[in-house]
Amino acid sequence: MDKVSPFAPVQVPVLPPIEGVRLAACEAGIRYAGRTDLLLALFEPSTAVAGVFTTSKTASAAVEWCREHVRHGMARALVVNSGNANAFTGMRGREAVAETVRATARIAECLDADVYVASTGVIGEPLDPSKFVGFLAGLAERAQADAYEMAARAIMTTDTFPKLATRTCEIGGVTVTLNGIAKGAGMIAPDMATMLSFLFTDAPIEPAALQSVLSPLVEDSFNAITIDSDTSTSDTVLLFATGAAERRSCPRIADGNDERLAGFRAALFDLMRDLAHQIVQDGEGLTKFVSVTVKGAESKASARTIAKAICNSPLVKTALAGEDPNWGRIVMAVGKAGEAADRDRLAIWFGDIEVAKDGEVAPSYKEVDGAAYMKRPEIDITVDVGIGEGTDTMWTCDLTKEYIAINADYRS
Amino acid sequence: MDKVSPFAPVQVPVLPPIEGVRLAACEAGIRYAGRTDLLLALFEPSTAVAGVFTTSKTASAAVEWCREHVRHGMARALVVNSGNANAFTGMRGREAVAETVRATARIAECLDADVYVASTGVIGEPLDPSKFVGFLAGLAERAQADAYEMAARAIMTTDTFPKLATRTCEIGGVTVTLNGIAKGAGMIAPDMATMLSFLFTDAPIEPAALQSVLSPLVEDSFNAITIDSDTSTSDTVLLFATGAAERRSCPRIADGNDERLAGFRAALFDLMRDLAHQIVQDGEGLTKFVSVTVKGAESKASARTIAKAICNSPLVKTALAGEDPNWGRIVMAVGKAGEAADRDRLAIWFGDIEVAKDGEVAPSYKEVDGAAYMKRPEIDITVDVGIGEGTDTMWTCDLTKEYIAINADYRS
Repeated sequence: MDKVSPFAPVQVPVLPPIEGVRLAACEAGIRYAGRTDLLLALFEPSTAVAGVFTTSKTASAAVEWCREHVRHGMARALVVNSGNANAFTGMRGREAVAETVRATARIAECLDADVYVASTGVIGEPLDPSKFVGFLAGLAERAQADAYEMAARAIMTTDTFPKLATRTCEIGGVTVTLNGIAKGAGMIAPDMATMLSFLFTDAPIEPAALQSVLSPLVEDSFNAITIDSDTSTSDTVLLFATGAAERRSCPRIADGNDERLAGFRAALFDLMRDLAHQIVQDGEGLTKFVSVTVKGAESKASARTIAKAICNSPLVKTALAGEDPNWGRIVMAVGKAGEAADRDRLAIWFGDIEVAKDGEVAPSYKEVDGAAYMKRPEIDITVDVGIGEGTDTMWTCDLTKEYIAINADYRS
Repeated sequence: MDKVSPFAPVQVPVLPPIEGVRLAACEAGIRYAGRTDLLLALFEPSTAVAGVFTTSKTASAAVEWCREHVRHGMARALVVNSGNANAFTGMRGREAVAETVRATARIAECLDADVYVASTGVIGEPLDPSKFVGFLAGLAERAQADAYEMAARAIMTTDTFPKLATRTCEIGGVTVTLNGIAKGAGMIAPDMATMLSFLFTDAPIEPAALQSVLSPLVEDSFNAITIDSDTSTSDTVLLFATGAAERRSCPRIADGNDERLAGFRAALFDLMRDLAHQIVQDGEGLTKFVSVTVKGAESKASARTIAKAICNSPLVKTALAGEDPNWGRIVMAVGKAGEAADRDRLAIWFGDIEVAKDGEVAPSYKEVDGAAYMKRPEIDITVDVGIGEGTDTMWTCDLTKEYIAINADYRS
């Protein structure tokens, strides 16, 4: 795609090295010429790993592999290819994963079980690993500690900008670093929203603790975004913790409930939400970045269901694209969500503008104000459904003709 | 909208009169000039009525009125306006309904409780009945038995053609007639799919029996279609039975399980499905009429959930718009539905072309065949999820730039 998202950062953030992580990428020619499409990340021995994966019933062979192996919690290498998702490729798909893993384990001098793989791109076409395993040895030689932007670019498909973020925090008085990269753009829905996100830290956290920190943070970061309600067969979040900070006297944490993890948890959540927002901000064809907050619902889960109905409504999304303050469509979406809502106490705000109140247009509301607000690139919609205390926020984008153009001829 | 659906019939069907039903429509100027927007239907005394309504939690005032009054099962008049849905208009909305009902009852010389109302159009703007109640007396005078096309046109909003259908059947050896009109186009989803459909018959069927015949038939007709997954606040199906055929010795039926209703039930279902298909065939901006059959599911309900996920997937719908045989997106949609599916036994057909088999591309499949099939205006997709005996069919259309254009500036 030639057109870059209007929300692309002016400058891509520069991520600091994380001790124990080395990265390299190259052009393997998997699908498109002239762009990097193969990423290798290498981790020092005793790196811990945690992961969260798509709930799709047609998950890809790579997801199956990672889900099974993340249980033992150790990692030495990650291989990611873009251009072909290796999903719905039957037995050949599993063989492609196995062959990639074997080749990588040989190069990284580790067990097959310590290699993680991810694939993104077209579904249903066999992935031929012989096309790219030959590049892995060269990548391992060239791998460097400061190659995050190169890594983020190599995992892009229809993304128009690379997605990176970094944070620091303290564990037991010692500063540790968190880096993350992600790719998104299409097939994004809040059932493991990101297609792929890889997170790296030098914090010394044991696998079980790492997993128990990671899992709950997905709900309000990657699972709180939706672009088109579609869910990928390949959605993967992997968090690698090299533990290198232990050499700088950072305490090793074995228990997910350890209070010394408070800062780490907050920093990780902030990093994940940042990457999740970047994914929405690169939604295919978007012109608006939209935050939808539902309050007054029966529960947080009920608020989430209503927020999702608003975010996924084609009629709401096309109104946003048309800069039309058509709040009637928000009412419609609240109604179809099927959750408890008091029509006669419903209230809606665009930013600070009270649009509807007590189930009808607010006395103070002027259409001209709503129309002016809709011209902004970032739109905040708040809905009070007048039932209880449940609240939730989700992020989405508008639905434009450009989305159709991108998706009507993705394969051609 | 200027552009007429490619599926618009060359000739609108001519509906025969139904004894006991008279119709008239006019230009009341409710929203747009130069088009009819007010329909009055009058029924002879002791006409029975049955209805099915939106499950939206933000249902319109008109739906609330009808839902309450249909319980007593008798009808003398129906008033429908287009241009304004009178939904989310608070207390004023209820007053607008009450005022419309009172004026109509006076003219039809009946009880308020025998008047049914429906409104379709923009949500959230107060409907001023004083704008149109003055026209009702004139409509009552002019009402005629053969004005179905005029009636179907008066309830259109963004519809590009009027939707009408007629059937006959026998009850106890006597021929009775069924006529139906409908409007759809946007905000159509399988939770009471049609925005409005009105059905008329001269069969003498008591209210309770009429309701028990109507309700189950909605599931595989109006509830089996989806255009954009959105659900209107105003969805209404009303079936009026004048009973006039009793004067031609048709037996009066009081029990919904009466075997003499078999032919009537079949004809009514056929009529409803015909109207439901017409609604899809006028989906906003469509170029394809798509039938999705799911088989091999755990149950019919499971098959419906999977079919719905396929029909509502923006990525599937944009691929259809692009005439791209991108069956990978169908796999994705099956996966996100969350129902039991055996990825390694999944099979997909486009018409008679076997595309995928045993979880990967079928050996016999050639992309050129799939691409040629996708150029048809009518597309049949069949998916076998390889689990059980559950089967279901839904109908939808593609998602085009024209849909966005229509919905991004509906109000302007």
